Amino acid sequence: MSTPSPSLTQLARLVRYYSLVSTTAAGSGHPSSCLSAADIMTTLLFGGYFQAHIDDPAHPDNDRLILSKGHAAPLLYALYAVAGVVTETELRTLRQFDSRLEGHPTLRFPYAEACTGSLGQGLSIGVGMALSAKYLEARAYRTYVLLGDSEMAEGQVWEAMAIAAEYKLDNLIAVLDVNRLGQRGETMSGHDVRAYQQKAAAFGWHTIVIDGHSIAACKKAYAKALKTKGKPTLIIAKTYKGKGVSFVQNKSGWHGRALTEEELDRALLGLGRVNPLWRGTIARPRTQSKHTTKTLVTAAPSRSSYTKGDMVAVREAYGQALSTIASDTRVVVLDAETSNSTRAEVFKEVAPDRFFELYIAEQNMVSTALGLSRRGAKPFVSSFAAFLTRAFDQLRMAQYSDPNMVICGSHAGVSIGEDGASQMALEDIGMMRSIQGSVVLYPSDAWSMQRAVELAHARQGLTYIRSTRAKLPVLYTEKTAFKIGGSRTLVQSKKDAITIITAGITVHEALAAATQLKAEGIFVRVVDMYSVKPLDTKAIAKACAETQALIVVEDHYREGGLYEAICASGVVAKPTYSLAVTKMPRSGTPAELLAYMGIDADGIVRSVREIL
Amino acid sequence: MSTPSPSLTQLARLVRYYSLVSTTAAGSGHPSSCLSAADIMTTLLFGGYFQAHIDDPAHPDNDRLILSKGHAAPLLYALYAVAGVVTETELRTLRQFDSRLEGHPTLRFPYAEACTGSLGQGLSIGVGMALSAKYLEARAYRTYVLLGDSEMAEGQVWEAMAIAAEYKLDNLIAVLDVNRLGQRGETMSGHDVRAYQQKAAAFGWHTIVIDGHSIAACKKAYAKALKTKGKPTLIIAKTYKGKGVSFVQNKSGWHGRALTEEELDRALLGLGRVNPLWRGTIARPRTQSKHTTKTLVTAAPSRSSYTKGDMVAVREAYGQALSTIASDTRVVVLDAETSNSTRAEVFKEVAPDRFFELYIAEQNMVSTALGLSRRGAKPFVSSFAAFLTRAFDQLRMAQYSDPNMVICGSHAGVSIGEDGASQMALEDIGMMRSIQGSVVLYPSDAWSMQRAVELAHARQGLTYIRSTRAKLPVLYTEKTAFKIGGSRTLVQSKKDAITIITAGITVHEALAAATQLKAEGIFVRVVDMYSVKPLDTKAIAKACAETQALIVVEDHYREGGLYEAICASGVVAKPTYSLAVTKMPRSGTPAELLAYMGIDADGIVRSVREIL
Repeated sequence: MSTPSPSLTQLARLVRYYSLVSTTAAGSGHPSSCLSAADIMTTLLFGGYFQAHIDDPAHPDNDRLILSKGHAAPLLYALYAVAGVVTETELRTLRQFDSRLEGHPTLRFPYAEACTGSLGQGLSIGVGMALSAKYLEARAYRTYVLLGDSEMAEGQVWEAMAIAAEYKLDNLIAVLDVNRLGQRGETMSGHDVRAYQQKAAAFGWHTIVIDGHSIAACKKAYAKALKTKGKPTLIIAKTYKGKGVSFVQNKSGWHGRALTEEELDRALLGLGRVNPLWRGTIARPRTQSKHTTKTLVTAAPSRSSYTKGDMVAVREAYGQALSTIASDTRVVVLDAETSNSTRAEVFKEVAPDRFFELYIAEQNMVSTALGLSRRGAKPFVSSFAAFLTRAFDQLRMAQYSDPNMVICGSHAGVSIGEDGASQMALEDIGMMRSIQGSVVLYPSDAWSMQRAVELAHARQGLTYIRSTRAKLPVLYTEKTAFKIGGSRTLVQSKKDAITIITAGITVHEALAAATQLKAEGIFVRVVDMYSVKPLDTKAIAKACAETQALIVVEDHYREGGLYEAICASGVVAKPTYSLAVTKMPRSGTPAELLAYMGIDADGIVRSVREIL
Repeated sequence: MSTPSPSLTQLARLVRYYSLVSTTAAGSGHPSSCLSAADIMTTLLFGGYFQAHIDDPAHPDNDRLILSKGHAAPLLYALYAVAGVVTETELRTLRQFDSRLEGHPTLRFPYAEACTGSLGQGLSIGVGMALSAKYLEARAYRTYVLLGDSEMAEGQVWEAMAIAAEYKLDNLIAVLDVNRLGQRGETMSGHDVRAYQQKAAAFGWHTIVIDGHSIAACKKAYAKALKTKGKPTLIIAKTYKGKGVSFVQNKSGWHGRALTEEELDRALLGLGRVNPLWRGTIARPRTQSKHTTKTLVTAAPSRSSYTKGDMVAVREAYGQALSTIASDTRVVVLDAETSNSTRAEVFKEVAPDRFFELYIAEQNMVSTALGLSRRGAKPFVSSFAAFLTRAFDQLRMAQYSDPNMVICGSHAGVSIGEDGASQMALEDIGMMRSIQGSVVLYPSDAWSMQRAVELAHARQGLTYIRSTRAKLPVLYTEKTAFKIGGSRTLVQSKKDAITIITAGITVHEALAAATQLKAEGIFVRVVDMYSVKPLDTKAIAKACAETQALIVVEDHYREGGLYEAICASGVVAKPTYSLAVTKMPRSGTPAELLAYMGIDADGIVRSVREIL
């Protein structure tokens, strides 16, 4: 009965069978979205184009496949069932609590390169992997991305299209499954494949339009794509949603709906005979072992040197700190056309081949960083902190893909002054704290920034560093110790009435307030809570034990910031007051704005007097 | 000396003069970015193309001008100085604390249509205004958007391009100032105006490429754009950054840098003679008074009817509630291709001409809603709450433009179940709380959703409603009163040991826990804190006074959620415990996931027992 070498047509039929059976077993899922891409994906994996060590999904020479249309997860699992590494029994555990076959791909399934399911992000992740292969690893592997047509409405896709062309990523091949139907009806372009072609061509891509259900056409397209130099390729496949099941095919109302048992029986009858013993073979990488590490510039060792009291912009110290870790060739720096402001450009000077200008497209930048991180790089990603809010969904999704990256948001707070509200990050701490597993650091001077970069560099995970525009006096020395979850008590005495807990630029305001109050005979403690997440709960508890009240001062909206974090820390046992940004910000000098918000030294002094 | 009717060339020179003088007076700003667009903007405003009542900037017949490249704010102010409504003295207050001339445009300047400065958002706001004019108001005004070339890297611009073409917005004219240089060097496309043309044409726009420093070419372009039917027009103007100042023009290193006094003197010498008495005239709307309100379908009155105990999906009640307020023709509904899930499509059935499908492009959707709101509409905007994180920057910016809109995020929390982490909103409450002036409502049943929609409808401002996928028993009746800042105590007795404060789906878990505990002789109070922002602090204080501890239960990450809000409310006087999502979510049944996170009835019961 068993066919020793089944045809691609037969394998595609088996992929469809698995996609249908698994979703019906789950009672939910998106079978119709799997069926449209079954032929083109079967051809990719089993037609000799996609190359990977099936027994070693982490092998560095493997081609990469990213399911940007993550709701087609059952298709991915079906393909690997046909490849022989997932059983039909396991397929039937789809979407169950203990199954590694989740509703959308996650890293629990070892052949998934990243967690996907928020549409429009997969191409950017692919850009990161293709950048890594071409510019960092010098490996021959290719990155394939399966895109849905609905997600082409997401701007991030076009950000990625532009960057892929800019970096001439001919090792990146995207497949667009134009099945015409979105979740609730027809997409903007419907079956107008030329519309997609024109757009992609205008964005600098090599395009190939095919009938996505013709195996021969699919083969020709991949062969052509693999020969293309200097440009990424988009294969635009005209397909039918639900292809292969007559009562579903090209019909509305079948998005995200599993077939009932009865419908499945009818569907399988129409699908034709499948043999569960049919297996497809994924080609092994032709270029294995031929890899030579690209000679990356190992930057000359650089050391930071700051003297207490010197005026140094904290963001300047960020750039300088990057140069001190540049000898680690895993370190890559991405910036969104702001590197002269974030000072990431200092790294560009010392290690230009590991600096990627990603232009003003923060969403793509973050997902690209994730792609780089998945391939072993340690990306440091920077822009104005205000504009990083644009990439919240990308950061949210990154947390599910075991990210190893550092995000630096500069120009935080009202203290940027004259540029006004649009440029002021006042919600970034809240945003970054809500990323699970994140660490949030907010240095107040050049040395604490240097150490923040080192701590973030040494750590596996997603770390956020909040950076400040202003020149501020150096507070610490080379010998000052910093740690994740630590704090520094800058002013203290046995007579302290109140503890001021703060971080970043307002540390300097708190110090000035302490000096002013001391002259009046009022003693306050000043704690630099540079580690906003995790907090130094011991220091908070100590402050509660030794002083009468806490005042938390921050250049941030109250919601989600340091005050709320401290209030929710579980160790607060004394009245706790908040000085934060609670009025609409505007243009003005930094000093005027800090005063207007009541978070300058005078505001702190006033608050202390009121409490006492 | 005074010229009665200065030429456009002379007026453009005066605009340059004002742009330079004001930024030098401020000591900061982006004069070079103003100079590149001086000719094309002068032609627009004073060449008879732009039409507005200069004495009545809010007049509904006025053409609209949005400075998407917000850093060119001094250009906007200079244009209105030439128009005679801003004095040179006022221009010299640029960026000062008390000046209405902020570093980036804000509503304090009455001729600014929206606060801009986070790049890539202006075109979407323009789309909202053009949609309003064409489909809601039936007014003849046109919307103009000035785009910078750097911001064309932002995906949101391409989202807006696609939607503008889809809705055939021939009343929308965008001007792209291709000055070649971004903040830190050349843009991706440099001076390759054809690259922009090809992209815009592929996205369905009418394109015109011109020399942006030729007044004659600018005039021809506007005349052509105004005659174009069925398509939006993009005028692609090749310009030079710093045009008119020889030592700045087309040179790197001059972004965001004001000239020193000495440099200004040199610049003005080269600029040529200007007469401060020169004035330009903005044409008055030709179509004034010809406006007739478009006959919008006033939906037949609809009433909701739910019976206590019935199982109704809260999201279903959202759609139904929209239909009950559809008779107000200010209400428009936008959705990102998810209306069959968010149930916004119920509104489409009753008022199809006020429903706008905006496809999977959340960033554009939110900024478009802002544009609609600026023109008097009351948009209700919906998608999966998880995907609304994509529009955080757009929501952040909207808060500075006096928004009047409602955002509904559906499918919140791990309780969506099988679809997995990518689809679960677990940070949306934190995000929406951090928007200044926002209200956050989280209904737990059909009636509370109905009232939430009504409260949001009645309110001026930005309101977030968190909606749930699951069918849940109706808890309330038609007579139950709800208010912003309110809560409902569902279970209470004089013997209550602990108060459980919760909202949304976990209200039902808390009720089940209370029943279970009562059987054991343990009495707990259950408070439905449906108004997450502002909180009902009286109810929290009462709970602290009357019970020994609080447990806050939420289907949300701990950071930024209900627990932190309550901890920071300033009224908590008893130990407060958190039951929230603190583990990585995954696929599974809703019940399994609520149990895994410890936020189901059993988890609450366990927690109560541990505390007592």
